[in-house]
Amino acid sequence: MEESSVAKILVLYHSNSGRTKNMAQWVAQGASSLNEHTVRTLSIEQATVNDIDWCDGISVGSPTNLGAVAWQMKQFWDNISHDLWGKIDGKIACSFSSAGSYGGGNELTCLNLLIILMNFGFLTFGVTDYAAEAFSSHYGAIAAGESNSQEEQAACILLGKRLAQWCAYYVNGQDEHHPRYECKVEAV
Amino acid sequence: MEESSVAKILVLYHSNSGRTKNMAQWVAQGASSLNEHTVRTLSIEQATVNDIDWCDGISVGSPTNLGAVAWQMKQFWDNISHDLWGKIDGKIACSFSSAGSYGGGNELTCLNLLIILMNFGFLTFGVTDYAAEAFSSHYGAIAAGESNSQEEQAACILLGKRLAQWCAYYVNGQDEHHPRYECKVEAV
Amino acid sequence: MEESSVAKILVLYHSNSGRTKNMAQWVAQGASSLNEHTVRTLSIEQATVNDIDWCDGISVGSPTNLGAVAWQMKQFWDNISHDLWGKIDGKIACSFSSAGSYGGGNELTCLNLLIILMNFGFLTFGVTDYAAEAFSSHYGAIAAGESNSQEEQAACILLGKRLAQWCAYYVNGQDEHHPRYECKVEAV
Amino acid sequence: MEESSVAKILVLYHSNSGRTKNMAQWVAQGASSLNEHTVRTLSIEQATVNDIDWCDGISVGSPTNLGAVAWQMKQFWDNISHDLWGKIDGKIACSFSSAGSYGGGNELTCLNLLIILMNFGFLTFGVTDYAAEAFSSHYGAIAAGESNSQEEQAACILLGKRLAQWCAYYVNGQDEHHPRYECKVEAV
Repeated sequence: MEESSVAKILVLYHSNSGRTKNMAQWVAQGASSLNEHTVRTLSIEQATVNDIDWCDGISVGSPTNLGAVAWQMKQFWDNISHDLWGKIDGKIACSFSSAGSYGGGNELTCLNLLIILMNFGFLTFGVTDYAAEAFSSHYGAIAAGESNSQEEQAACILLGKRLAQWCAYYVNGQDEHHPRYECKVEAV
Repeated sequence: MEESSVAKILVLYHSNSGRTKNMAQWVAQGASSLNEHTVRTLSIEQATVNDIDWCDGISVGSPTNLGAVAWQMKQFWDNISHDLWGKIDGKIACSFSSAGSYGGGNELTCLNLLIILMNFGFLTFGVTDYAAEAFSSHYGAIAAGESNSQEEQAACILLGKRLAQWCAYYVNGQDEHHPRYECKVEAV
Repeated sequence: MEESSVAKILVLYHSNSGRTKNMAQWVAQGASSLNEHTVRTLSIEQATVNDIDWCDGISVGSPTNLGAVAWQMKQFWDNISHDLWGKIDGKIACSFSSAGSYGGGNELTCLNLLIILMNFGFLTFGVTDYAAEAFSSHYGAIAAGESNSQEEQAACILLGKRLAQWCAYYVNGQDEHHPRYECKVEAV
Repeated sequence: MEESSVAKILVLYHSNSGRTKNMAQWVAQGASSLNEHTVRTLSIEQATVNDIDWCDGISVGSPTNLGAVAWQMKQFWDNISHDLWGKIDGKIACSFSSAGSYGGGNELTCLNLLIILMNFGFLTFGVTDYAAEAFSSHYGAIAAGESNSQEEQAACILLGKRLAQWCAYYVNGQDEHHPRYECKVEAV
């Protein structure tokens, strides 16, 4: 299968402590479950304008710093906006964030990232399915604290897979990848 | 052309003063510019679970009440969640809101609506293109004050058209409807 | 000590499953640690316009329904806005919310509540101090899942106490109640 | 009157085009209407940790870049958090932002700033009073477009004055400065 016929996924992250990088790798693992050859996992130091332009779908992760995106990640987007804004509408996008604590702003940081992504005209989403008991990524994948838990890992994998599914379904027209064929959701 | 081959758009609104209803009609007008026969414009009193289930794309509008969605619109979604949540993932969605004043929370209400729509697994978006000088609907279409201006009307029409375009492009695979073929955007 | 010289705290909640009610009682417990005689804990069925008017500080709790405030709580505020909006500016306010899952929108619902409270001119806050390891209420107290954990309880108590402290310090001029005299915070 | 008995206000801003700087000067003008000698207006290049520590109340302004705070302003707060976080709780805070367009994210950027300020334990607020017909700063003062309008100016002045009023009332115990003695608000 040639690259043009499979969805191209970019997992873009900034990490201070290594925990957001861990999340990025799990998101990429989930995305790779559909097609491993078209997933790029890059830090903001590694990624270029071309990587953003290349992808069909993107997952963006930042540490939660003061309840918001880290300045380094914001700088990345502010700096590329001159080249890309208004030219890359319609990509499919989601977000993830690691905080010092639950209740410390990881959901708010995911939202902050989604707002930035919507500004570029991207279609943003969260995952309805639960990743574990009482754990989900309805607005992006979240983590908190010094070490990552199993459920945080599962939520990242689920998010990455969902991104790949939406891209396969919508960008590549592969109906069989619609998540309805595997959804097992709990009542809200 | 049969209905199954064109995107089905629902414009759902609640209106107290009539201004959000005006916005709904302009959003529907924009959506109808692609195909008028598959656009439904319904208040929350008229719409049923079946209308939500029917559509490929949805635009939801509420008055800005206290910087947030009107309780009546929230009640509508809370009440249908038992029947539909987890079963309708992947629809394409956007929002609009009318406030008493600029700076009075219409953007925040659009965001409130997008969060509710993301909870259902919808892919949410705003419009990069400017509707008029210094007027856009990057996070949904906004209005404020007693009467609606030309630029507010233009922003609603643009939002509805963009919704129809994304649905045509992504849901129906009609590449010619990608907005890149008509985008004229200003620098951020 | 007469009532006029101590801060008057209202804990206002709506609860579907009982978990938000549990949180309300813990928030009230924290607030009562300064003065138990001036704390009212009321559901939206019990509270009236007079209770809102009476209090110096308020903590408002709602279930997380679709990542946002429950319609019943929104209805409460929409309905009283005619009587009170513009007349009760300057009260001190915070929020709390219980969700089905972590990552399911409890932070976003706290924010939704804070936005509503800011609309009335209230001064809104979260708590910097950690309630437990990797658990805080920086934007309001959060909980998730079927049963409430020790750390969720601790976060509620801390939030209620902080509300009482800010009211004692700012409304009643009791400098000794500034939290700096007991803060033990971790680095962000 | 010595400095210790009047509220100390910091207006902190970052500006790319000069419009956010204009807003900062109007916010400072409003704050100065209570006491001109204790208002500092500083860009992030000028301000230090000591200025943040000094003030009783702060108003923070940023351009709206991609619907969020400019990276430079975020960098300022991220960098000082090591020195100040957990030590400056309880200051009174508000925000302002200038965007390319209405509907372009200026309310969302004000919210982004308020979230950052709440993270430091600040008490955040907006202004209920209308600054002009259909124009308010319920969640911070907003502006958009190439030039600033009269109503945008009025909203900034009102915000700055309200900040000084809350600080005079709460920090310095000057009851006569409570805005209720001059409020003229319209129905929501």
